Amino acid sequence: MQSWIDSANRADGPFPVQNLPYGIFSRDPALQEPVCGVAIGDMILDLAVLEQAGLMDMGNGPVFDLPFLNGFMELGPEAWTGLRQYLTEILRKGGDDALSGNPELQKAALFPLADATMFMPFLVAEFTDFYASKHHATHVGTLFRGAENALPPNWLHMPIGYNGRASSVVVSGSDIHRPMGQIKPDDAETPHFGPAQRVDFELELGAVIGVATEMGQPVSTAQADKMIFGYVLLNDWSARDIQAWEYQPLGPFQAKAFGTSISPWVVPKAALERLRCKAVAPDKPLLPYLSEQKPGLYDITLEASIQPENATRATTICRTNYNRMYYSSAQQLAHHASSGCPMNCGDLLGSGTISGPETSEYGSLLEKSEAGQKPFILDTGETRTFIEDYDRITLTGWAQGDGYRIGFGECTGRIIPPLPEPDWKN
Amino acid sequence: MQSWIDSANRADGPFPVQNLPYGIFSRDPALQEPVCGVAIGDMILDLAVLEQAGLMDMGNGPVFDLPFLNGFMELGPEAWTGLRQYLTEILRKGGDDALSGNPELQKAALFPLADATMFMPFLVAEFTDFYASKHHATHVGTLFRGAENALPPNWLHMPIGYNGRASSVVVSGSDIHRPMGQIKPDDAETPHFGPAQRVDFELELGAVIGVATEMGQPVSTAQADKMIFGYVLLNDWSARDIQAWEYQPLGPFQAKAFGTSISPWVVPKAALERLRCKAVAPDKPLLPYLSEQKPGLYDITLEASIQPENATRATTICRTNYNRMYYSSAQQLAHHASSGCPMNCGDLLGSGTISGPETSEYGSLLEKSEAGQKPFILDTGETRTFIEDYDRITLTGWAQGDGYRIGFGECTGRIIPPLPEPDWKN
Repeated sequence: MQSWIDSANRADGPFPVQNLPYGIFSRDPALQEPVCGVAIGDMILDLAVLEQAGLMDMGNGPVFDLPFLNGFMELGPEAWTGLRQYLTEILRKGGDDALSGNPELQKAALFPLADATMFMPFLVAEFTDFYASKHHATHVGTLFRGAENALPPNWLHMPIGYNGRASSVVVSGSDIHRPMGQIKPDDAETPHFGPAQRVDFELELGAVIGVATEMGQPVSTAQADKMIFGYVLLNDWSARDIQAWEYQPLGPFQAKAFGTSISPWVVPKAALERLRCKAVAPDKPLLPYLSEQKPGLYDITLEASIQPENATRATTICRTNYNRMYYSSAQQLAHHASSGCPMNCGDLLGSGTISGPETSEYGSLLEKSEAGQKPFILDTGETRTFIEDYDRITLTGWAQGDGYRIGFGECTGRIIPPLPEPDWKN
Repeated sequence: MQSWIDSANRADGPFPVQNLPYGIFSRDPALQEPVCGVAIGDMILDLAVLEQAGLMDMGNGPVFDLPFLNGFMELGPEAWTGLRQYLTEILRKGGDDALSGNPELQKAALFPLADATMFMPFLVAEFTDFYASKHHATHVGTLFRGAENALPPNWLHMPIGYNGRASSVVVSGSDIHRPMGQIKPDDAETPHFGPAQRVDFELELGAVIGVATEMGQPVSTAQADKMIFGYVLLNDWSARDIQAWEYQPLGPFQAKAFGTSISPWVVPKAALERLRCKAVAPDKPLLPYLSEQKPGLYDITLEASIQPENATRATTICRTNYNRMYYSSAQQLAHHASSGCPMNCGDLLGSGTISGPETSEYGSLLEKSEAGQKPFILDTGETRTFIEDYDRITLTGWAQGDGYRIGFGECTGRIIPPLPEPDWKN
């Protein structure tokens, strides 16, 4: 299937007519409130314009003339399918000519992606992060507890997760201040308070929940899968020195609270349906509430790169695949609701760091530098163990279809120095 | 100071004119949307009625004709002080007669508390829970790791906290379904999935945050204290068997996600100012960012009771005091923002279980029953180790002023059986 918008037909372009990811954009933030759009080739299709022109009526008043996708997401899977079918029809070559045959509407509704300012695509209700790549958990566990005790005893029975902080989830492009925090080096008697020295990234995929559940009501993995609206790239910035000192016994807190970046485009789950693939067979049988009737993972190539401030180009430091995971988002969501915990539209579930078995597939610097013991060299000559000020980390991802790519765009951000400390006595 | 509303002048009543807690109520949920009110004696003063009558103008349109306090809370400390002064003036004996001299307005604005339905007082932005009573941490640590290793090494240096789940915070009176979850008894090879058998309560105070911070910007304890709007009673329902199996290495997750109850009345921090008291001197010096210039705790008597379904009365199982804590809410909030984590209006910070040194001061059944090893007998003859179906847990609290009490009302809830499991295969 091709689009009449030529730039959507490049075989390696991220946004063909088979993708149609949703985002929030403004043509000029000084003049225009952000609204909902869909990426197609080099352009953004302004859904608020189509809605106002009367081409799409979602039922209960406008849902696209809003600076977040939640209004649309709340309408549920039938509405998602209906809109996707309609958008496909008006964007594909030879389909409905409501847009292709109306140059005036095209002028009003299509805007160059390169000129747009992107915003957070949805209001994050709550953010939960998981620890669901066996490769990652094994690497990290081996570094901290030795190979014998790498995986905690519960790991093969449930997707281990923790509640993260929603208020610090930001859109790609936002700078992140290096966090301050309590740090206790191994050879120190007592902790000190200062800037984290071991700032890391984590390469993840984020599942965006569109359908709410009732308090007290568990859901199956099949129901959970239907609740997922789409996926984003996610960088779970982490301060390893703060984490090491604080995380026992109640888990990571300030080490993960200073920033989480997501890509601006939410790739609809529907665009990935044909690219489903099975996880490896579990090492131990899973309990029935975690069983999956259809393959829960996707074949999505993922990359991470680092670019120091004055480096002429970025160095790819990780290339892996989402199909490396042990637990799928549907399994994570079913586990999340298993106690009766109510889930809401706008909940964001981080997959957990995605790592493969090879060193080239390590989705964090903690793994790549072996907890800082082993510096690595960038293509431009610099060495690194962890992230230095003004380093830029960029995540990209795409799923290869038959003659097209479902691209995620990018999720990028820089670590910048901390703000000045307040006067602690006032 | 006395009120012209007689029921507010009982020496042991919870809601004298010195208190004036805020809540959300409806006279008849079938007919009236909930609005903001203030408790005074046996009555609720309807702030929406006063606002509409033109007695109070908070600036930018109505903030009390809303089913949550966030609109008012967002206006900040000056607005909180201004309204409190005005309400005190029109409610005290011998003050402004705008209400006391207007029987028609009284009829419209005063409603019997006993006839009102109470709702969640505010939209919870995010919920964070701490572990900040040294007595509780020592009791629990001793049960699990022995007296030698009771306190984790970081405990005396920072208020240990974790992100909880905001979506399951409910108002007092709500029933809570017993959670399902993964449980692995010590003598079992593998976990099973079923109803938790060790459901517990945790007696806590919740600090309600009214003022937001910028991402990247730490705050001092003095700034943090000014950001706190008020306090509620909080019951952090916990499933100890789910918790024991899941909590390593990333902390409690589903064990704490099935419900958290709070009292319907938010006691303004201003009402507690005269009842401040100092924490015990810290065992080790705290880092400057956690230092406090004024006493951060309050002298608040707290009780918990349990009443089985057919018992004729409740049995008090804990009586302790908020001044038993090691870390104050201001210290917890300063720590929470220390990494640059942005805080928002509506954030709720649980103090952590409040326990004292004596067995009569244990704020959880985990402590009281020594992890289920030691059943205890209720006044009505039943024995308990953990909570059984239809048991009611009620928390109460009050701070004793000079001739008056600042009451918190109550936070009550029952554990009821789980909902039926879904078909896990569909």
